Amino acid sequence: MPQLTLAYETWGTLNADHSNAVMILTGISPSAHASSSELDPSEGWWEPMIGPGCAIDTRRNFVVCINSLGSCKGSTGPDSINPKTGRPYRLAFPEITIWDVAKAAQWVLNHLGISQLRMLVGPSMGGMSGLAWLAQFPRGARHFLCISSAAYAEPFSIAIRSLQREAVVSDPKWHHGDYTAQSWPENGMRLARKLGMISYRSAREWRKRFGRQEQNRIKPKLYGMNYTVESYLENAARKFVASYDPCSYVYLSRAMDWFDVRDGHGSLAKALSRIKLQSARIIGVESDILFPLHQQAELAAAFAANGVDSKLLELPSEQGHDSFLVDYQRFKPATRAYFKEVLAGE
Amino acid sequence: MPQLTLAYETWGTLNADHSNAVMILTGISPSAHASSSELDPSEGWWEPMIGPGCAIDTRRNFVVCINSLGSCKGSTGPDSINPKTGRPYRLAFPEITIWDVAKAAQWVLNHLGISQLRMLVGPSMGGMSGLAWLAQFPRGARHFLCISSAAYAEPFSIAIRSLQREAVVSDPKWHHGDYTAQSWPENGMRLARKLGMISYRSAREWRKRFGRQEQNRIKPKLYGMNYTVESYLENAARKFVASYDPCSYVYLSRAMDWFDVRDGHGSLAKALSRIKLQSARIIGVESDILFPLHQQAELAAAFAANGVDSKLLELPSEQGHDSFLVDYQRFKPATRAYFKEVLAGE
Repeated sequence: MPQLTLAYETWGTLNADHSNAVMILTGISPSAHASSSELDPSEGWWEPMIGPGCAIDTRRNFVVCINSLGSCKGSTGPDSINPKTGRPYRLAFPEITIWDVAKAAQWVLNHLGISQLRMLVGPSMGGMSGLAWLAQFPRGARHFLCISSAAYAEPFSIAIRSLQREAVVSDPKWHHGDYTAQSWPENGMRLARKLGMISYRSAREWRKRFGRQEQNRIKPKLYGMNYTVESYLENAARKFVASYDPCSYVYLSRAMDWFDVRDGHGSLAKALSRIKLQSARIIGVESDILFPLHQQAELAAAFAANGVDSKLLELPSEQGHDSFLVDYQRFKPATRAYFKEVLAGE
Repeated sequence: MPQLTLAYETWGTLNADHSNAVMILTGISPSAHASSSELDPSEGWWEPMIGPGCAIDTRRNFVVCINSLGSCKGSTGPDSINPKTGRPYRLAFPEITIWDVAKAAQWVLNHLGISQLRMLVGPSMGGMSGLAWLAQFPRGARHFLCISSAAYAEPFSIAIRSLQREAVVSDPKWHHGDYTAQSWPENGMRLARKLGMISYRSAREWRKRFGRQEQNRIKPKLYGMNYTVESYLENAARKFVASYDPCSYVYLSRAMDWFDVRDGHGSLAKALSRIKLQSARIIGVESDILFPLHQQAELAAAFAANGVDSKLLELPSEQGHDSFLVDYQRFKPATRAYFKEVLAGE
């Protein structure tokens, strides 16, 4: 590719010896705007976690969040203009992997003059990107906070993502990627997002939150949109459909399926053996069906097998995979405690 | 409706006092052909369970399986010809409920001269229909074998079915129900069935069965159909898409969402209080995410609260909701034991 742009945002100040950097790699959909700042006072996607005095304390840490390569939130992706044609790449965009997403993040760190992170933070797909980054830059971070992620994609998650992509690409308005603002694969994206929500949350949460409650806000469609859970999904999908590029979605979704940090190694422990972390904290949520707890346990054990001070933190959050975006009551103290421990040890 | 047809099949012989009848109500998709017979030697959908010497022993029981009202396997449904127009009803078919499905089943029993069943067997949606039937005909059965079902739909299951229906009705070939064999909502039905498979099986089963195994049988589509789990879903969907009527699917799917046997009663125990069963066995599967175990437990407890000899049987099957169609190693002995107990007590 002739050129690449990577969108990132920072909070706090890089100290003199550049030793207080924290990099956040994101899930599939968020932008680099993890928190508000003077330049952009709008609320970030992880607002309660990042700021002065917050769990990720910007008075003591220089925090950088990077929009993934292939995304559509400022970094180069299928939606970017192909300089050769003057039009968006779309399906002419090269197939990218989680390894590429990780490599691209390193360019931002190079640009900022950061040679080693105090802490790498990776929730969801960001944890996969984090692992791919650590495998490529084994001395790149001293500590790793991995949240609701996985060392490789399992078939249940592949099945869900496969179906999401199929919903998008079987929408007649997909036009093999040549959709326009006037002819957008909205139905496919809406189905994909609703399936996303089903896999991101939990049956237990919905049982309490919605039960069999009926709704009256959205006009019933065929056979009605009788239940609150249905209008909840509809609202969530409407927000997403207009704001995310379908090609980016397909590319990054597939990149997650392909990801297996064990590739070329016999086992997970071997794959992680070169990584020189001081510590790792692997947070998993009991109700997460997309990145299930046993994958977090496996990851924590593999780091421990390599002599890393590695611990699994099982949180009993009810909001499934999305808990890190919702259950701040649990995620704030867990994150704060880890940072406190890390800073105390410096 | 001017006329109704109900498809049913029977096995075994009704005894002199008509006391050995067993009625099977089915899940959303099966026909009345639960097992092979002289008239139709083809394999039935529950073949290993029904026959001479089988768990449901046709030497001692007169077994009748009824295709649900609204289905497309012989019973009147949206696909049937509307005598007023000479064309299929489709969306002109009246909205039906699980209560209607149950009521229709009673017509078959009346026709056969059966006033009380020895045993009612209801897996999946069939358990819902069974409960609706018992609530309407409280002395209609002496024993009830309820398998992987529920007394009411919960929001997680509603969400999944809602999305399945949306996939079908947002297919441009849906044509508000006026699809033809030449223009069939195949994409929507395929998506719906794949989502069905995701909700019918379990992550644990697929982890062992498929892992990250790659496939080479089906030509990769956009971004490939790289993994065996994807071709498995594709094969399952292809079989279904051509053989099930989209309107029937939408009607019966919604009927399940609507179902709540508690309607008009304060509690599940009150709703079941008029039912005069001698015993109930509620089988649930630990890995079932669509009709989760806690719903079986609630049902077993509600029968017990009404003085019925009611027991919950938790099976550790790995195949999720579909286990009753797959894990015969567990379902055969459980069913056989219950019948043995019932016959011993007569």
